[in-house]
This record gives sequence, structure tokens and C-alpha cells, in this order.
Amino acid sequence: MTTDDEERGMNQRNATGTLVVSCPDRKGLIAALAQMLADHGVNIIDTQQHTDLEAGMFFQRLRFDATDLDISRADFKDLLRIKLSRFDMDWRLAFRDEKKRVAIFVSKFEHCAYDLLLRHRLGELDCDIAMLISNHPDLQHVAESFHVPFHVFPIDKNNKATQEAMEIALLEEERVDLIVLARYMQILSPGFTERFPERIINIHHSTLPAFVGARPYHQAYERGVKLIGATAHYATPDLDEGPIIHQEVEGCSHDDRVEDLVRKGRDMERITLARAVRAHLEDRIITYGRRTVVF
Amino acid sequence: MTTDDEERGMNQRNATGTLVVSCPDRKGLIAALAQMLADHGVNIIDTQQHTDLEAGMFFQRLRFDATDLDISRADFKDLLRIKLSRFDMDWRLAFRDEKKRVAIFVSKFEHCAYDLLLRHRLGELDCDIAMLISNHPDLQHVAESFHVPFHVFPIDKNNKATQEAMEIALLEEERVDLIVLARYMQILSPGFTERFPERIINIHHSTLPAFVGARPYHQAYERGVKLIGATAHYATPDLDEGPIIHQEVEGCSHDDRVEDLVRKGRDMERITLARAVRAHLEDRIITYGRRTVVF
Amino acid sequence: MTTDDEERGMNQRNATGTLVVSCPDRKGLIAALAQMLADHGVNIIDTQQHTDLEAGMFFQRLRFDATDLDISRADFKDLLRIKLSRFDMDWRLAFRDEKKRVAIFVSKFEHCAYDLLLRHRLGELDCDIAMLISNHPDLQHVAESFHVPFHVFPIDKNNKATQEAMEIALLEEERVDLIVLARYMQILSPGFTERFPERIINIHHSTLPAFVGARPYHQAYERGVKLIGATAHYATPDLDEGPIIHQEVEGCSHDDRVEDLVRKGRDMERITLARAVRAHLEDRIITYGRRTVVF
Amino acid sequence: MTTDDEERGMNQRNATGTLVVSCPDRKGLIAALAQMLADHGVNIIDTQQHTDLEAGMFFQRLRFDATDLDISRADFKDLLRIKLSRFDMDWRLAFRDEKKRVAIFVSKFEHCAYDLLLRHRLGELDCDIAMLISNHPDLQHVAESFHVPFHVFPIDKNNKATQEAMEIALLEEERVDLIVLARYMQILSPGFTERFPERIINIHHSTLPAFVGARPYHQAYERGVKLIGATAHYATPDLDEGPIIHQEVEGCSHDDRVEDLVRKGRDMERITLARAVRAHLEDRIITYGRRTVVF
Repeated sequence: MTTDDEERGMNQRNATGTLVVSCPDRKGLIAALAQMLADHGVNIIDTQQHTDLEAGMFFQRLRFDATDLDISRADFKDLLRIKLSRFDMDWRLAFRDEKKRVAIFVSKFEHCAYDLLLRHRLGELDCDIAMLISNHPDLQHVAESFHVPFHVFPIDKNNKATQEAMEIALLEEERVDLIVLARYMQILSPGFTERFPERIINIHHSTLPAFVGARPYHQAYERGVKLIGATAHYATPDLDEGPIIHQEVEGCSHDDRVEDLVRKGRDMERITLARAVRAHLEDRIITYGRRTVVF
Repeated sequence: MTTDDEERGMNQRNATGTLVVSCPDRKGLIAALAQMLADHGVNIIDTQQHTDLEAGMFFQRLRFDATDLDISRADFKDLLRIKLSRFDMDWRLAFRDEKKRVAIFVSKFEHCAYDLLLRHRLGELDCDIAMLISNHPDLQHVAESFHVPFHVFPIDKNNKATQEAMEIALLEEERVDLIVLARYMQILSPGFTERFPERIINIHHSTLPAFVGARPYHQAYERGVKLIGATAHYATPDLDEGPIIHQEVEGCSHDDRVEDLVRKGRDMERITLARAVRAHLEDRIITYGRRTVVF
Repeated sequence: MTTDDEERGMNQRNATGTLVVSCPDRKGLIAALAQMLADHGVNIIDTQQHTDLEAGMFFQRLRFDATDLDISRADFKDLLRIKLSRFDMDWRLAFRDEKKRVAIFVSKFEHCAYDLLLRHRLGELDCDIAMLISNHPDLQHVAESFHVPFHVFPIDKNNKATQEAMEIALLEEERVDLIVLARYMQILSPGFTERFPERIINIHHSTLPAFVGARPYHQAYERGVKLIGATAHYATPDLDEGPIIHQEVEGCSHDDRVEDLVRKGRDMERITLARAVRAHLEDRIITYGRRTVVF
Repeated sequence: MTTDDEERGMNQRNATGTLVVSCPDRKGLIAALAQMLADHGVNIIDTQQHTDLEAGMFFQRLRFDATDLDISRADFKDLLRIKLSRFDMDWRLAFRDEKKRVAIFVSKFEHCAYDLLLRHRLGELDCDIAMLISNHPDLQHVAESFHVPFHVFPIDKNNKATQEAMEIALLEEERVDLIVLARYMQILSPGFTERFPERIINIHHSTLPAFVGARPYHQAYERGVKLIGATAHYATPDLDEGPIIHQEVEGCSHDDRVEDLVRKGRDMERITLARAVRAHLEDRIITYGRRTVVF
């Protein structure tokens, strides 16, 4: 039983839009953006803004209710393109009813993929899970139990280029917006990562820049650290060097063997990756250089 | 040796202003505020904004550079008063070069007062420490070592009204903006707290609403909790019920006796109180009902 | 391919035993216990010990390798019974190859049950999951996807006593050692909880003693707290008053609506419950009065 | 007014001893140690024990009441030397009434030294603060306000060897047991650190091994990390490579400039250093290789 009020609530929610902008800082940007939206019947729900004084850069995210938008979305986009060009602005526009499509890449570890799928089912991640892609067949049961298509692309040193080309073709055919490397144990080629700039999120199982490379929990154990953690970052051709989105840690002690670090780390990986993916889906992240603004 | 650029930087910093507003939510508020500032040569440095959709309330903090403000500050204030009245807006305006004056109330525990004084000396708290007030003479040496006036008002059940009246007189004479109860072990009378609404910050040594009242560490020990913490809140006539500003916790275990909880708690008290005071001094806090927005 | 060394390692692991004792403190307890084990070829792997000086109580957990135990386990138990009686000792003995059997109680929320089942599959929880019990049929798919028996006992105010009697019969028939209330939304009758003392772990979605009773996230939102969390405790006839095993919190802000607290809380619930269950399964917990020692 | 009971309590406290041992693991160690103490009227208050199965190493800390020790402390030490030698044991013995003497090294930053001195006054650190040593005269007022001797040893590239020799002479003359580098901004020569093995605690302002070397907060800012922290470790000739004792972190964001990281980091530095110093003073730390056991 839906009342009129509830229906209107639903429409509003679906008509929620997000405009994210970054540009060289100058006077009057906030007023100009707010006015531009107000002029077309758009009501700002909330906004986050940041200025990096050293870099001279301005960043803003505006979430708005477009129920009363007085022109078509296509025209609105054109308008933004024309008006924002004079500010030398990078910008993107998203509507909540145009859900982002996500591909989850896995290998043999299931905990991160499971976690994302469960959160999606619980309504924490507002997106479509388009597919699971793996280089191994092991996790088919995970995909099945959440009714998500599962594609296997086995990779060895001879077939990597071909397999990645097929993956890319599939991702583009399925209009995938975001790739999540949920403990995917294959290094993507530079050509692959460059194809999806700021659209691939990786989880690394250490608090970068500590313990780059392979087997970070073993490295952490060797060094005798008292904290272990995880880092979610955008993947770039420079492995483990991409812009950091979120990090979490937990305490550890002499009592923790490598297997205990692995166990504790799994919780950090799951929480860290989920936060980063959620922030991306809500258009809260802007990268510049090696840094991120996460509103 | 100060260069011209540095001098200009200094002027800008001193001319930094903060406008904090709250009002019933309606369309166009963000554009209207931004435009009002832009119209008078004021450049917004950064802004934080929040809408409580359930309460239908709008909140915004705008930090701006008033170096090129084209009217006097007094006229600017009048202008805001006139223009903001039509939005039914609560607002306040602060300039960085008009430092807030702070009085720290203490009894016999020195750690919170020490911490605030040290942070002030290190430049973390942008204010003037006008005085320490105590109901005991014990902490005079703390005031002296930081060159701050120290006033003792001994309080018993017969003289409370008189002593508080004298405290109020002193606070008003010294134009004190903020009172910090740094483990002050006397309950202020309702008349006192009502005199300084949202201008008295108290630190309670538990994560409220757990363990209200006396001896919270003993209560926590009795209950066998596994976390202890502290809460900074604005003082109201209802003890321990004022709007919460910040809370911190730390883990504890069977190994911690009451004295260990007290020791661990001191760190939480210091950090929590300092954060709350800093947020207040930077005009980041807005209260509504029993809640706070902390930008 | 298993080497001899690996096989011996496996035997050792299976023969690992844990002795947990508590008694009034007196001289010589540590020496007496260690000697008793040494006398029968038992090698202590590690030990944790605690003395509550105020309560005058002694607590110890000894994990040992029983590969070379020179008498039968039954005789060893008899021996302990005889020898430890003179110290007025409460004690329990567990062997790793005699796995505890666990029943998970659920209602309609799946996240905690899912989490426990996944951790079990990943090897984090060394037990047998004997069954899922629910008062609703909704989570059958969860049980199925992990191949665990699922039993539904619908409960209303008329049939509670009968249904609980049937649950108890099933639990005892299946020799269940530990009951985990994984967001089970029915209050167990005192007769039920008293039947399984220190063998029922509940997860409450607040940091007790804050927000006892129903809808703690709503209560937390109303109070405007800046931290939310979860508490795992043994269930007793006094609701939300049982001995606390573990607590976790996370920060929240004005930006979090009730649904955000619920989402953030889910992570705290999962981690807190899993830690408590793991500690119980490893025989790390001793209760006395309303308190726990968690080694 | 001290009652007889309180006096006895005081004597007991003063007669509290701590025995810390490490050796290759073998059967019967716990029983042998406990028996050795029991044989001489010594009552164990509590004990912590750890076995590193991979390294084959055994570690134990025994805290005991030596009020009824039936031989002299000197004889007790001789006895331990003789009896423990057959286990190939490293061991040390400390009595609470033989307080450790601490020297705090500082440069121009006062927050860590202040914090240690305040904690000492509050009774958190059970030691004598023998002196402050600095390479600059700036912090004399800190030493004075806590009535601690202050010695200045200005260091440049020409006089380092001479000045360090004088420092060592002073430290040895004053029987200093522990040196705390409280943001001392001079690298100690290898000869100095080797003179005081496991007796120099340094605070590094990052979560090692991330951001070794100079200006870690600037490095952290450049990398765009989302957590900053501090590491307390024993100083060795290999800079920033010594065994880690404790680490703490706090979240940071795009909103934090370098100066904000510095401010947040100060809190982490203070807490981390204080914990490490306290653990050392209570003889809770054992190092082996690059690792520490911290009981």
C-alpha cells in the first residue's frame, strides 16, 4: 500500500542527481553553481566543498532533487557543458535512477566478493552487479548463490593480452561503469588499467605505502608491526601507487602469527573495500594527481 | 624578515570570517547566501552544509576571506541581519582576528587543564585563555606555569549562589565567550548554565548516555564493560543531558582495575575535550534540540 | 603428499587440550597446576593467567599438547577432578578434536548468520555448525547455501513455552554446546536461558549499558551520540544484563540518519559477535559475577 | 593516617618483583619456574607467557610478592643465575622499590616531554626522571616547571663524538636505566645506541615501515594517505629499523593539510610513546631479533 506521499518520496529519490566538479579556484564559483541549478528548478539537498589552497584547486559535490527540473536531462547536460567550460571545469553528472553497473573480479579468495554481494542485497550498495569475472573457476558457487553471471578467463603468461582483450570487450558490451578487484590475484596490464581510469578499485592488504608488492601479511609479520590494515585505491599502471580512497587498521601483537594477521586483515579488507566502493557509487570521490578528495 | 606576500597572507588570515546559519529548509538558500557574500567582495574559502530532511532544517558554515569586503564589518553585520531575517535564520558571524576568550574551570585534577593550556601554546587552539577558575587552590601552579590568571571561588552548600554570582560577574567583566569545565567537580546551578547557553563545554568521563552521574569509571568497572571513553557536551540545566559534541573510546579488559580505567580515561578525556573546544572555537558546531551538527 | 613431520603436526594439533580454571586465590596455584600437567607427559604450549586482587580470585587457561599424555583422557579427567577439588576450583577441560557444536538462532536479519557461516567455512571458527533455528522461514536460503540444517519454530504469545520445549529437546538431542543469537528477535524465557548458562551468546546493537531494550539505533539517533557500536554478551534471564564479552564502536555524525547507523552498526555487530564466538570456542572466557575474563 | 593494613599493603607493593625470561622452548619450563619461586616463599601475583612455535622460543613474565622471600635479594639473584643457566635462559629481575632512572632527550618540540613529565606526576610512570638532555636550550622552562635537571649538549658535525661521550659519562654517572628520545632531532651515533641496547626508546612520527627518514608528515601528505600515526621502537644503529613496541593511528582526510597532520600526529606520538615507556618500566617487553613480545 503506497500513499501519495510515499510515491512522491520515491519519485524524488529516483530523480536525485549528483554534480561533481573540480577546477582551478577562483572567486564566485559556489554562487555561480548554486545559481545555475536554482535557475532550472533544481533544489540542492546537500553539498560538500573543498579548496586545496596549495594546489589552488576547487572541488564541490552537489546532490540535488531534479523532480522539478524544467528542461530535459539531455538539455541540462548540454547546458552544464557550455556554462562550466568557461570555468575550466572537470565535471560529471549522475542520476540515482541510472544505476552504475559493477563487475567484481575475483580469484580464489571469496570473502571480499561475498561481502560486496551481501551488502548489495542488504541495500548498502546502490548499483547493479553485472558480473563476477575470475581467472579461476573456484568461486562459481558464490556467483550462483547471489544469482550473478560468472565468467572465467584463465590467464597465463602466453594468453594475457588476448584474455584481457576479451574481458574488455565483455565489460564494454555490458556497459560496466566500475571494476572492483576483490582480491583478484592477477596484475592487470597497463593497457587495461588505462582503459578504465578512476574506474577500477583495488584492495591491497596493507596500509600503503607500507608493504607494497606480494605477501604483505608475511612482510608485516617479519617486521614485527603492531598494526595491520588494508588500503582501497584506484588502480593505475603503477602497481600499489594509485590514489588512496580509504584505509583501516587493527591492532596486532606478538601473539598473532601470519595466519592470525590474515584473519584479522580479512575484516579490514572487507570494510575498507566496501567503503571505497560505496563512496565511488555515491560519486563522493574526486582524484587529482595522486590524491583523492572523498566527500 | 617578512616579504610582501607573507604580509598579505597574514592579513588574509586575520580577515578570515565565518558565517554559521541554520533555518527551516527551503529552495535557493545556498545560492542566496553565496550571492550575498559575493556581492560584497567576499571570497568563500570553504563551506560545509547539512540538511536534516526529517527535521526540515538547513545548516551551513561558510568560511570566507574578508580582505576585500567593500563595507565595514558593522555594516556587513547589519546587512546580514536584515537580509537573513526573511529566511527565519539563526546566524552568527565571527572573525578570526577577534579571538574568543576562554575561561577554564578546574578543581583538583590537572590533566585536562594542562592539556588545553599546552595545546593553546602549541597553536592548536586559536583563542585567548582569559583565566582559570577553581573551587580549590590546588592548581595555582598550573595557571602560573602558563602565565594565566587564577581565581579561587570555594563553594559549599551555603555560599553557592553568592560565589556563582561573583563568578558570573568576573566572566562578564572579562568578556569570556566560552567556559570549559575541565573536570570541574561542582555542579553548576541552572541559573548559571542558562546564562551561557551553548557556551559551556563539559567533559564527562563516560560515553554518555552510559554511566551518567557520579564515579562513571567505578560504574564501568562494576558493569564489566570492554570499552571506556569520554563525552564532551554543552552543559545544560539537565546534568549529563546536554547536546553531545564529541566522544572517544578505548578498549579495556579484565586486566584493568578502576585505577587503570581512570588512567586510560584521562587520555580519552583530554583528546575529546580538546576536539570539542577546537570545534567550538572554529565555529563548527550548531545545536538544535538535543543534537549537534559538527562540521 | 603428507610428510611424517606434517602428520605429527596434525596429531599434535588434534591432541591439543585446554584446561580453564578459576578459584579463590592462594599461594602455589601456578606451580601446582603446571606440575600436575608435567607429571603426565603433557607439554604446556601457552598459558594466560589473571588474578583479581579485590575479588581474591585466581583464573588460568592452559593450552597443552596431549600427544604424550600417559593415561587415558577419561582417567586424566578423573585425576583433575580429584586433585583440583582441594583447591575449591571450578574447571573445564576441552580437546581440540572434540569440536563444539553450535546452533545459530536467527529471525529475518541475515548479516550476522551469514558472517558466522562464512567465517566457519574460511576456518576462523573451529566448531561444527549443527543447525540454524529461526522463528521465521525467511532465511532458509542462507542455511541451504551453506548446507546447514534449518529448523523453524514460529513463536507467538500462546505457543512460546511449547515451542521452546521443542527447541530445547532438539538442541539436547543434537548435543549443541553453544547457542548464538545472531539478531534473533525473540526474547528467550528465563527457563530457556537458565538451561544453558554461559552457553548462549547474544549480540546487542549498542554499547551496553547504553540503550538497553528495543530499537537501540533509534535511541542512539534521538540522543545524538557520536559513536555507535555493538555488545556481545552471555544471555541471562535479565535481558541485556548478562556478562559482557566484547564491544566495538565506530564514529558517527550529524550526517548519519537512523538507516546509516543501522548500516554502520551491522559491521560492528558482525565483528563483535564473531570475536565473542571465537573466544568462546577457544575456551578463552571465564565469567564470575557479572564480569568476564577474556584471555 | 595509615592503618596497619595499609602499611602492609605498601610493603607488599614495594616488595613486588618481576622476573622476565626467554629461552629455547622445552618441556617443563613453566612448572620449573613456578616451583623455584614457590620454594622460596615467593607468591606469584600474575604471569604472562608466550611461545613462538616457529622460532622455538619461550617467553614469560612473572610478577610476584617478595614480602616473604626467605633469602636476601642478592642470594635470590645468585640462585636464579645458577638455576636458570641450565635452561640457556636470558633473564632479568626487577623490584618495584628499585625504581628505574629515566633520561628524556629533547630538542625544540615540547609536547612529548611535557606529556611524560605530567604522566609521571600523575603516577602513571613508576620511575625517577633523572634529567632532561637537549641539544638546544629552548625547553629549559619545561624542565624547571617539573623540577627536573636540564643539561644542554649543543651538537654540530664537528663536536658530535665529544658531546656524546660527555652525555654517556653523565648518563652512567647518574645510573640512568632508560633513555627516551622524545622527538630528539639528532641522530645518535652507532656507538651511542650500542652502548644502551634495548634501553633507548624512540618515537617516530609515522607508522613504520611507512615513511622512514625525515619529514614523515610531509611524506604522508604527498602520498595522500587516509591514516596517520606514530611508532615507538627501541633505537638501534639502523635508523627507524629497531624493534617496534607500539603503534597508534588516526584517520585523516583531504581536509587535513600538513599542519593538521602534525597536530593530529602529536596526539598519536604522545600516547604511543607513553605506552611504550610504561611497558618498558613495568618490564613487559622482551625483544628477539627485530621483534618484541609486549606482555
